[in-house]
Amino acid sequence: MSVPNRNTLWGRVVADELAKAGVDTAVLAPGSRSTPLTVAVAEHDGIEAVSLLDERSAAFFALGRARRTGRPVPLVSTSGTALANFHPAVVEANQARVPMLLLTADRPRVLQDSGANQTIDQEKLFGDAVRQYRTLPEPAADGRKLRALRTALSRAVGTATGTDPGPVHLNCPFEKPLEPTTVDGDVTDEFLDDHREVVEGRDGPWVEVTPGRMALPDDQRDRLARAIADADRGLLVAGPDSDLDTDALSDLARATGFPVLADPLSGVRFGDHVETDDVLVAGGYDSWLGALDPTAPADVPDLVLRFGASPTSKPLRHYLRDSGARQVVVDPAGEWREATFTATDLVTADPTRLAWALADRVGSGRGNGRGRGAWHDRLATLEADYWSLVAADETWFEGAVLRETVSNLPDPATLFVSNSMPVRDLDRFARPRGAGVTALGNRGASGIDGITSTALGAGHATDDPLVLVTGDLAFYHDLTGLLACSRADVDATVVLVNNDGGGIFRVLPIERFDPPFTGYFRTPHGLDFSPVADLYGLEFVTTDTREGFRDAYRASLDSPGTQVVEVRTDSEASHRHREALNERVHETLG
Amino acid sequence: MSVPNRNTLWGRVVADELAKAGVDTAVLAPGSRSTPLTVAVAEHDGIEAVSLLDERSAAFFALGRARRTGRPVPLVSTSGTALANFHPAVVEANQARVPMLLLTADRPRVLQDSGANQTIDQEKLFGDAVRQYRTLPEPAADGRKLRALRTALSRAVGTATGTDPGPVHLNCPFEKPLEPTTVDGDVTDEFLDDHREVVEGRDGPWVEVTPGRMALPDDQRDRLARAIADADRGLLVAGPDSDLDTDALSDLARATGFPVLADPLSGVRFGDHVETDDVLVAGGYDSWLGALDPTAPADVPDLVLRFGASPTSKPLRHYLRDSGARQVVVDPAGEWREATFTATDLVTADPTRLAWALADRVGSGRGNGRGRGAWHDRLATLEADYWSLVAADETWFEGAVLRETVSNLPDPATLFVSNSMPVRDLDRFARPRGAGVTALGNRGASGIDGITSTALGAGHATDDPLVLVTGDLAFYHDLTGLLACSRADVDATVVLVNNDGGGIFRVLPIERFDPPFTGYFRTPHGLDFSPVADLYGLEFVTTDTREGFRDAYRASLDSPGTQVVEVRTDSEASHRHREALNERVHETLG
Repeated sequence: MSVPNRNTLWGRVVADELAKAGVDTAVLAPGSRSTPLTVAVAEHDGIEAVSLLDERSAAFFALGRARRTGRPVPLVSTSGTALANFHPAVVEANQARVPMLLLTADRPRVLQDSGANQTIDQEKLFGDAVRQYRTLPEPAADGRKLRALRTALSRAVGTATGTDPGPVHLNCPFEKPLEPTTVDGDVTDEFLDDHREVVEGRDGPWVEVTPGRMALPDDQRDRLARAIADADRGLLVAGPDSDLDTDALSDLARATGFPVLADPLSGVRFGDHVETDDVLVAGGYDSWLGALDPTAPADVPDLVLRFGASPTSKPLRHYLRDSGARQVVVDPAGEWREATFTATDLVTADPTRLAWALADRVGSGRGNGRGRGAWHDRLATLEADYWSLVAADETWFEGAVLRETVSNLPDPATLFVSNSMPVRDLDRFARPRGAGVTALGNRGASGIDGITSTALGAGHATDDPLVLVTGDLAFYHDLTGLLACSRADVDATVVLVNNDGGGIFRVLPIERFDPPFTGYFRTPHGLDFSPVADLYGLEFVTTDTREGFRDAYRASLDSPGTQVVEVRTDSEASHRHREALNERVHETLG
Repeated sequence: MSVPNRNTLWGRVVADELAKAGVDTAVLAPGSRSTPLTVAVAEHDGIEAVSLLDERSAAFFALGRARRTGRPVPLVSTSGTALANFHPAVVEANQARVPMLLLTADRPRVLQDSGANQTIDQEKLFGDAVRQYRTLPEPAADGRKLRALRTALSRAVGTATGTDPGPVHLNCPFEKPLEPTTVDGDVTDEFLDDHREVVEGRDGPWVEVTPGRMALPDDQRDRLARAIADADRGLLVAGPDSDLDTDALSDLARATGFPVLADPLSGVRFGDHVETDDVLVAGGYDSWLGALDPTAPADVPDLVLRFGASPTSKPLRHYLRDSGARQVVVDPAGEWREATFTATDLVTADPTRLAWALADRVGSGRGNGRGRGAWHDRLATLEADYWSLVAADETWFEGAVLRETVSNLPDPATLFVSNSMPVRDLDRFARPRGAGVTALGNRGASGIDGITSTALGAGHATDDPLVLVTGDLAFYHDLTGLLACSRADVDATVVLVNNDGGGIFRVLPIERFDPPFTGYFRTPHGLDFSPVADLYGLEFVTTDTREGFRDAYRASLDSPGTQVVEVRTDSEASHRHREALNERVHETLG
């Protein structure tokens, strides 16, 4: 093997080490300064290189894939504002704890602060939003530097996927020549012979990185198990990204007899465990909690175990706040994710390990299934009655779009929902199903930027059919993201709930102040999105009826390529119907 | 006047103080947390509120308008990833010294680090890229806080437009209620009566902020004047954003007899001064410098005064580097903007003031016009011969698109050019004209993100016709930006030079390595952009001939609304012709 110059050597070592550390896909945005990285990643057999042209969309695509797989998708960019476009996705990855690895090419140090073209201060550009920042040394045929490089890369992948997963930023300065042109004497054959190990790498990663998982000491686990055993009305709350293995959760629910309130993005609202005997996985609480009397002791829990991020459902958050229950926040990174400040315990532990440990401990003691009984039955009845009521509702509104979408999802499938109304409608209208539905959203910072790209990245990760439910503002915001359908070869069914503006503002008090409500909050744009079909080579269907939606949706699931199924809705009518239905639930079940 | 609650009061004071500090336009992205700011700005008679839906495009729009007017356009966003989308434009504003004022709504401090929805760490989100960061206090009906608020705002506008203009970030936490709902006792009539001055503000801004301008002490000015008088072959180089008043520059050029090499984005390549007697404003140097012999003393300057950022032209930068001349970098902020590190003097001074002072000093002494003579005539001949040669060239290629565009621009007009090839072609093929052409680009960090939005923002600032010349990658990158045509009521002529990918990579050595050149550098995307016409309600014309272009271009300039005039080009053929033409120039003029 001969190597034309130090940058080529450096790039090849980077690509090789990434692959050995488990990276199988990378996203490259075109640029000149990043040439050594781009060439090496593109040429590496073990890495699929996806070329995307807008760095903001590219970063969300990488985020989506990593969210689905748990493995980081390195992002390669050139210098300058290119990497600032990564920032929204970096913030989301930070808050949602999704692995991300930013490899940003930079001008060499000698050009810093010199007014050189496309040279900005890239150091710590993402501030505290990354788990680790580091400027790599400038490339050299140097044994120690190459060992440091391999170490830095395997560690970066380890940090990005560790106990507190998130983004890692490696800033990579390069001097010219950036291309694999031969520079005599730069990387000699002697050097390559003498440094075979570091040039070719080890069989596996240079450093095997094993992240520990937080576990409770036995006495602390027992203390918690006793609290569970002593509880009369316990509750398990799985918030978004709960990190709970469904088997572990089932075992804990069965052992304790506690009902599970499963956020739609918790990872536990869908799956075989939902249909397990003796386990109640409830999904309709966002509405039926209103049928309970928060001042009646029998209607509130006395112990709550909370997993994952703060639940999407505001009624649930307020119910827990007002319950007076002992609330145990379980967080693998020891962070506080409970914004009413009524929780009483913070437990730093891996949720799945803790669930197994508690199930084991409680299951063998007197607590076994004790939580069941009136409390459990009460919630089970509410849940069943709620879904009967929803099933009987024949109005076609935005909530029904989500209901139709989820109940007709293939098994398995990846479902991605936008923030704002789709995730709230999913929360309220998606009945738990015993199907392999992976439901995802960007609930770290709950932005509506990058939704399409994140979904396509998630879809790229598996062969499961991908369904995205998004709104018109989110669809517009990430208009460039659709390019990934062709460039990354992703097929999707995009359910575009188009109510011409920000429907969520209808839910807020600002609705009563018009102007400025319509012009500056609801912001109707009147955009006709059908031209995206020709722009990106997709299919586009518009409907405003249930039958039309069913047909188009099924046709899309049955066909290759990407179809956008636009459902034109009236946000005001939908909002009124949500309220009416909710009132009917409270009257009927209360 | 009664005020429903403290947030409404706070918002109104913000809007009032901004208007009094000279703000006439603000850009609002929809969101909930920013409601108090949005409502107040939307309702303020003195501020035009532009509502844009993608914060990245919104920020570039604000950048473009500020670039054209010198006044900041406040950007209002909600909390969360919304503001991270501002980052690319913030970086550009920082590097290009464009005023910018970010008013980012934030969750109240009590919700920080609590996992509350849409709550991220917004403090210092843009790091060192802003001139000033501050988290405002939470709103209150409190005399001192309101005085502090008015002071902070008038100072923020002053800082953004000061000696070293750039972005200022004011992070604005708000508690609910965000809407103008009445909160009894929150803002009492007594409070309003007792604090009339701070509630209603003063006649002008709360604090009159007067930025100083750097001037040289007399002895230092005289030292420089003597160096000028002693020079045999002097040169004035105006880089991008040179901050030079054209009259001041003309006077300096006339007094010294020094030719001016005017970057296309310097602000001095176009204008009446170009046709002034005894002043040579040269624009063809990017090509004709190659006809000079850098080793012949008669062919290089002995003194160079450099204004503005580092010139776009690489041949010019290298010529100056190799000249051995004394090079004086004049910078109003005392920054070093010369990346070959061959300049010898750094002078911190306002360029226009310095030009007047030197013209005055030299003009009255023995240096008057002494620089003219063989050297001046030599460059004048090269410049004239170059443009004759260009005029005689009948090939239709990308450079000719720029030539046609500029020579047929109305007077006055705003011309915005994208980075990558358009600005380089502008540099080489746009002959200096005695017309009121304001030529702008984003040369701070030279990104291709946000080009369309920046141009539309610049166009929004005046009644001058707006022409944008952009490439297909930049056009795609800011696809959402076109919404500003309708929402901000901007008419534009968009010349879209579509060579299906990154033409600039043809200029780089990576072209010889294919793969990966085509797949990961040139990145042909095959996008048919004509559907943007229906998407945004624009006109779209495609041509690949000079006549077709001329017709469509003139028709667009003569019609209201926005037209995209797509010119399909072959980047390889264009590149070869640039090289051939350049060679012809060197042979003919050398």
